[in-house]
Amino acid sequence: MISKKMVDLVKGSSVIRAMFEEGQKLSRQYGAENVYDFSLGNPNVPAPQKIADSMVEILRNEDPLYVHGYMSNAGFPEVRKAVADSLNERFKTDYTFENIVMTVGAASGLNVIFKTLLDPGDEVITFAPFFGEYRNYVSNYDGKLVIISPNTADFQPKLDEFKEKITDKTKAVLINSPNNPTGVVYSAETYEKMSAILEEKQREFSHPIYLITDEPYRELVYGDIEVPYVPKYYKNTVVGYSFSKSLSLPGERIGYLVIPSCIEDAEDIISAASVATRILGYVNAPSLQQLAVARCLNEKSDISYYERNRNTLYEGLMKCGFTCQKPEGAFYLFMKSPIEDDREFCNTAKKYNILIVPGTTFGCSGYVRIAYCVAYETIVNSLLKFRLLAGEYGL
Amino acid sequence: MISKKMVDLVKGSSVIRAMFEEGQKLSRQYGAENVYDFSLGNPNVPAPQKIADSMVEILRNEDPLYVHGYMSNAGFPEVRKAVADSLNERFKTDYTFENIVMTVGAASGLNVIFKTLLDPGDEVITFAPFFGEYRNYVSNYDGKLVIISPNTADFQPKLDEFKEKITDKTKAVLINSPNNPTGVVYSAETYEKMSAILEEKQREFSHPIYLITDEPYRELVYGDIEVPYVPKYYKNTVVGYSFSKSLSLPGERIGYLVIPSCIEDAEDIISAASVATRILGYVNAPSLQQLAVARCLNEKSDISYYERNRNTLYEGLMKCGFTCQKPEGAFYLFMKSPIEDDREFCNTAKKYNILIVPGTTFGCSGYVRIAYCVAYETIVNSLLKFRLLAGEYGL
Repeated sequence: MISKKMVDLVKGSSVIRAMFEEGQKLSRQYGAENVYDFSLGNPNVPAPQKIADSMVEILRNEDPLYVHGYMSNAGFPEVRKAVADSLNERFKTDYTFENIVMTVGAASGLNVIFKTLLDPGDEVITFAPFFGEYRNYVSNYDGKLVIISPNTADFQPKLDEFKEKITDKTKAVLINSPNNPTGVVYSAETYEKMSAILEEKQREFSHPIYLITDEPYRELVYGDIEVPYVPKYYKNTVVGYSFSKSLSLPGERIGYLVIPSCIEDAEDIISAASVATRILGYVNAPSLQQLAVARCLNEKSDISYYERNRNTLYEGLMKCGFTCQKPEGAFYLFMKSPIEDDREFCNTAKKYNILIVPGTTFGCSGYVRIAYCVAYETIVNSLLKFRLLAGEYGL
Repeated sequence: MISKKMVDLVKGSSVIRAMFEEGQKLSRQYGAENVYDFSLGNPNVPAPQKIADSMVEILRNEDPLYVHGYMSNAGFPEVRKAVADSLNERFKTDYTFENIVMTVGAASGLNVIFKTLLDPGDEVITFAPFFGEYRNYVSNYDGKLVIISPNTADFQPKLDEFKEKITDKTKAVLINSPNNPTGVVYSAETYEKMSAILEEKQREFSHPIYLITDEPYRELVYGDIEVPYVPKYYKNTVVGYSFSKSLSLPGERIGYLVIPSCIEDAEDIISAASVATRILGYVNAPSLQQLAVARCLNEKSDISYYERNRNTLYEGLMKCGFTCQKPEGAFYLFMKSPIEDDREFCNTAKKYNILIVPGTTFGCSGYVRIAYCVAYETIVNSLLKFRLLAGEYGL
């Protein structure tokens, strides 16, 4: 009796989540130290101490009716102001609290903006490889996800194909950089070209095309890599942000949307996003979490931990003979499967208690995603197993 | 450029929420003590001390990777078990953790179950007066809300009309007791009759009809009123619960669904609810809040506060000459408007800085809702103004 749409969704339920459940089962069976679970983007660097300290301080000193109470659906105005001020300082923007809608993580932010924008049949373009959940976020509102094929040379978006696939029905473009699953950071040059194409197509079709940038990994970049601030390149940009990875709070569900006043129909979109937050049943982002992150906007997880993991894993896998895209950000490594069938390769890896996710899940077959937000020992020990796995393919 | 559906939603945006915003504006203008804002069900009894104590204890003693991390989409298994055990003790049920899905408040629970069950065109029956957001929760999934007209004699459901309006397209029935906006508790007799009708109609149409009971006010009842446990009366019942009111945590967004194993297609529904939680962008209920409520399942807000408010308000309004339904639970009083046009009456009340919500919002014109989860002084002082308001209508 479940809905027809859900029947298929349950059948093809998230491969990543299924692996997470499987990893927990294997851990019980073989002991956690003998399972190399690279399936889920669950940060393993603890939240900064200031998070717990701020929460305790708020719980001890503030009125519980305020801390746990309702506020405007878009969030506490003072929290939204703190976020706006922080962005203004970092990116020389001029946001007010009204440009910020606090959300139940980035996943809710994307649902809110799609609920706001999409009529049935509207098209949303995204670039493979991409986070598989985008399919659902768009289909929730009867939109159509249009996928640009992957550019496996460097995993920057294929802009020629992009230009061809924009139609009169294109309502939005959804990007994600630093990228899940490749760890690639889209370059300033990419944004310049993408913006020029979008401007041209907006003129051609006489309606706005919104660029929605999903940025949960903004703060997680290595070395001197800079992540361009997308609204600087293209006017009709909406930013979706999450504190899940930057402050290691994935279970708390806290993030925000930036809806700049300069985007077309900004006022309607801001009002509608607030209504969407309510009627989708979020009502508002969790209140204590809102108050806590507002006090921790300058905090960051210890990224050196992930960087050491990245270096050891990347070098280790290359030594095994695998071909890998070197991640510039996030905590994912995208590796070429030695056989065409990435699912079969993942199944073979499972024999060694290595859990990795087929690239097919991300719209990019022939590759696998390795989430290296795990203990350093897991990386080191897994390399012995990856060595054996490589051997199976004559590497 | 916002979606067509949203254009209307923004226009007719929640009257209750608009009033909340207006109340805040009036407070800034006249001073909070001179505004009688009865618009929103925002608990004014603080959360039990054990909530803050539990959170602080968790934050100080537990691993932050556990406290703030991802878990199964349905919630921490140990939290779900604690909820199941607590229900089993209270209601002599035999739930396991698998029957519990932790949700982002009751609003998300209802969205999750409708996403799970509804195909476009499916009908959901509800009884006026009802919480206006139900319209949106059903239309989010292209369902059709079928409304049974109000029984203004005692505000128990009109079961004859109910029986007539069940069709082959009826997928679910949505009830809410203790009721928002009337404060009425549906009786055991109501459930016996409702169940008999549903059993008969299930046989007639050869498919299950799910009874979804929205119970954020379960613990808020006065005197010796008992709230029947609905799954005892009808097999295909799903319970939606929230800690928003019982523990005064509305901003934190924490609740759960009970999906008993005995309901038809239970296994599919449980799996699908977990998937729906993920793809609607909730991902999971806020993690710290899950852990905190699991430690506070026997806690309750101080209901004597609301009871005093209820008594003073009810008696005061009756003395003014108004006709009121005496609330048995929740913190709402449903009052007959002295004129047919309840919106006009609410506008007149605004002249006295009294903010109350038209019954039309709840599918019951000619009445108004007064949310008495406010300071006792507000009740006392407002009665002077209600006296003047009554005078305008010759009461």
